[in-house]
Amino acid sequence: MKPDLVLAADLFDALSSATRRGRGIVRDSYGPGEQAAHDIVQSAALDLDLDTSIDAIGNLYMTLPGRDRAAPRLFVGSHLDSVSQGGNYDGAAGVVAGLAVLAAFRRSGFVPDCDITVMAVRAEESAWFDVSYLGSAGAFGLLDPACLAIARSDNGRSLEATLLEAGFDPGAIRERRRLLDPKAIRAYLELHIEQGPTLIAAGLPAAVVSGIRGCKRFRNARCFGEYAHSGAVNRPQRHDAVAATVALLAQLESSWLRRLDAGEDLVVTSGEFTTDPSMHGPSKIAGETRFVIDLRSVSADVLTAMVDETRAAADAIGTRYRVRFDLGATSESPPAVMDAGLRTRLLALLDEPFEMPSGAGHDAATFASLGIPTAMLFVRNDHGSHNADEAMEMDDFAIGTQALLDLLHDFR
Amino acid sequence: MKPDLVLAADLFDALSSATRRGRGIVRDSYGPGEQAAHDIVQSAALDLDLDTSIDAIGNLYMTLPGRDRAAPRLFVGSHLDSVSQGGNYDGAAGVVAGLAVLAAFRRSGFVPDCDITVMAVRAEESAWFDVSYLGSAGAFGLLDPACLAIARSDNGRSLEATLLEAGFDPGAIRERRRLLDPKAIRAYLELHIEQGPTLIAAGLPAAVVSGIRGCKRFRNARCFGEYAHSGAVNRPQRHDAVAATVALLAQLESSWLRRLDAGEDLVVTSGEFTTDPSMHGPSKIAGETRFVIDLRSVSADVLTAMVDETRAAADAIGTRYRVRFDLGATSESPPAVMDAGLRTRLLALLDEPFEMPSGAGHDAATFASLGIPTAMLFVRNDHGSHNADEAMEMDDFAIGTQALLDLLHDFR
Repeated sequence: MKPDLVLAADLFDALSSATRRGRGIVRDSYGPGEQAAHDIVQSAALDLDLDTSIDAIGNLYMTLPGRDRAAPRLFVGSHLDSVSQGGNYDGAAGVVAGLAVLAAFRRSGFVPDCDITVMAVRAEESAWFDVSYLGSAGAFGLLDPACLAIARSDNGRSLEATLLEAGFDPGAIRERRRLLDPKAIRAYLELHIEQGPTLIAAGLPAAVVSGIRGCKRFRNARCFGEYAHSGAVNRPQRHDAVAATVALLAQLESSWLRRLDAGEDLVVTSGEFTTDPSMHGPSKIAGETRFVIDLRSVSADVLTAMVDETRAAADAIGTRYRVRFDLGATSESPPAVMDAGLRTRLLALLDEPFEMPSGAGHDAATFASLGIPTAMLFVRNDHGSHNADEAMEMDDFAIGTQALLDLLHDFR
Repeated sequence: MKPDLVLAADLFDALSSATRRGRGIVRDSYGPGEQAAHDIVQSAALDLDLDTSIDAIGNLYMTLPGRDRAAPRLFVGSHLDSVSQGGNYDGAAGVVAGLAVLAAFRRSGFVPDCDITVMAVRAEESAWFDVSYLGSAGAFGLLDPACLAIARSDNGRSLEATLLEAGFDPGAIRERRRLLDPKAIRAYLELHIEQGPTLIAAGLPAAVVSGIRGCKRFRNARCFGEYAHSGAVNRPQRHDAVAATVALLAQLESSWLRRLDAGEDLVVTSGEFTTDPSMHGPSKIAGETRFVIDLRSVSADVLTAMVDETRAAADAIGTRYRVRFDLGATSESPPAVMDAGLRTRLLALLDEPFEMPSGAGHDAATFASLGIPTAMLFVRNDHGSHNADEAMEMDDFAIGTQALLDLLHDFR
């Protein structure tokens, strides 16, 4: 049996048309972009006569009934939101793959042993709300209720207000309500585009994911110095926020290189770095910077050590440059282990078996953290993700989705 | 005889009221803020029955006639524009000091040997138009006509369009017209607040300037990398614009320290550094940065060497980080020498004689570059300049202005 690739192509087209803004895709968490994507896939699920339901925080479940409806279910999931000016495939590919499989099952009359549910997860991209795995962690009642006060990065509205405006119930998060029972989930499977260049370089269409890098991120780091004339203040009298931030980032890069040499897994990124456009000037020493430090590793120990090292470096450099760093709290997502049995079975379903770690976080990490057997498939994708140039070939998508179909068809 | 400090205080108040926007002062070059300042001082000059005139590019001349009206004149000048969110004294203090002196002369009936002209110079702050000494260099026909195409940094309108809108004549710049004849100027004197902490630290009210640092500035430097997911791309595959820019600035800081150790005069500043808010993200590698590199020294050789070093470092680091730097052209203002005789005479007029170099550029540099005997006085000022917290005490202003009056009264 083959997945319904015509449906898949139609869904990708519909998602692109509905949510492209300029060059890139904008499916903002709990905003109109994400909602448009949910409406499109829900409508497709209804056409396939799947059972659909939406939980209190907006996650969408589309279910093909199995023979034993009371038995633990198989979940296929991914998210439908995107970063601002992202691509059409990051997240959506996993939901579309699940529907392409269920469409094939439905049309062939195949009835699985247990229910199979495609879950369209809300708000995975923490670019909007600085919370890891908001939709999937929220479904299990795992979120700290304090997160309801977090402001959306673009419009400043709180998560609580945003949920209410979108018609959902912040009470579910406030009361840590468990909307999904881990014991009722037999396994969680997620197909996702690869977000780096590994499969392109290897010339392979798909891979099985061995594990997921965790992340510790200083999302709202700031450095406070003192604005002054660039020509009139000599080095010993300066309180230069840019020079101090540059020194901090340069020191973190040295630590990174040292740890890579020692064989540790680590990436260090500052993807946002800005002086204040209303205050800075070409002939001014900068009095303030805002920046992000994003640390990722498959090792929780390496992440903890790097956070400690970053705080110590900021203190020392702050003193040396006569400035004050306020790194703020870190947002965290722990590394996740994939199920060994599922990995083996998925590898056996690929013509060219290949395994690799995931550098990015995925909702699969939430399910794995609860002890649910979890596995992921990566599909080759050019130009990385989180940008308008994501390029996944439908032939590669077909290979990944076929493996998903075969695993679900004969799940044991 | 004493300068008219009541008039001076009134003028500072009027300037502050008319051009404060929020906490800071905004006297935008050739915009409404600068014009309001010109209107205020011109009105004061007319009250003093001074001859006033305005040249083709908006510089304002306020003249007390001398006995020999055909003899070369004495000039007292400074600018009336400010950076955005600047303070009330940077520039304006020199014009106000000149008027406070002329008011005293006029009221006492003193008639000098030659005309004494207070010049309110246009557009000294290159934060608006990236041209050094726009008003004073333009008055002498020294500007490259290509500068007419330069866009104002905040609203993007060209200098040509801005001059026309303000009622002035860009033809004067296009034809390199000489609006002032250097031979008709006997000397140029400028009083200015100190823009650094030296006089505060020394506990002195005023200083004579020994020389002016020149500046070479990469005003529109950019680094182009490639946006990608921060977790999914390992170090060898990255095109990280922030990491490369940090490496460049860190290397320039090393050069700076080495040159300071060697006894060279130099300051190195990057006062603007931004990733693209419409494209960057906390989980993205940055694909672009925009930044400024501002180099200043009393030595032209040091400036030239640093520019060469910066370009070479950008090439090498660009290759190492797989990114492309586009540093753009440098804007330039050469170091300037102050007149030895005038320095000596001014020093003799201070109770506590003190000399220091000027780190910032001033219109005085334009006059000095033409061989006009030029001197400057600094007045103590707290918190530096180019910010809303400039703090000059009127007692210190009185001491500097008194020296200016005494020099002009017995000029020889």
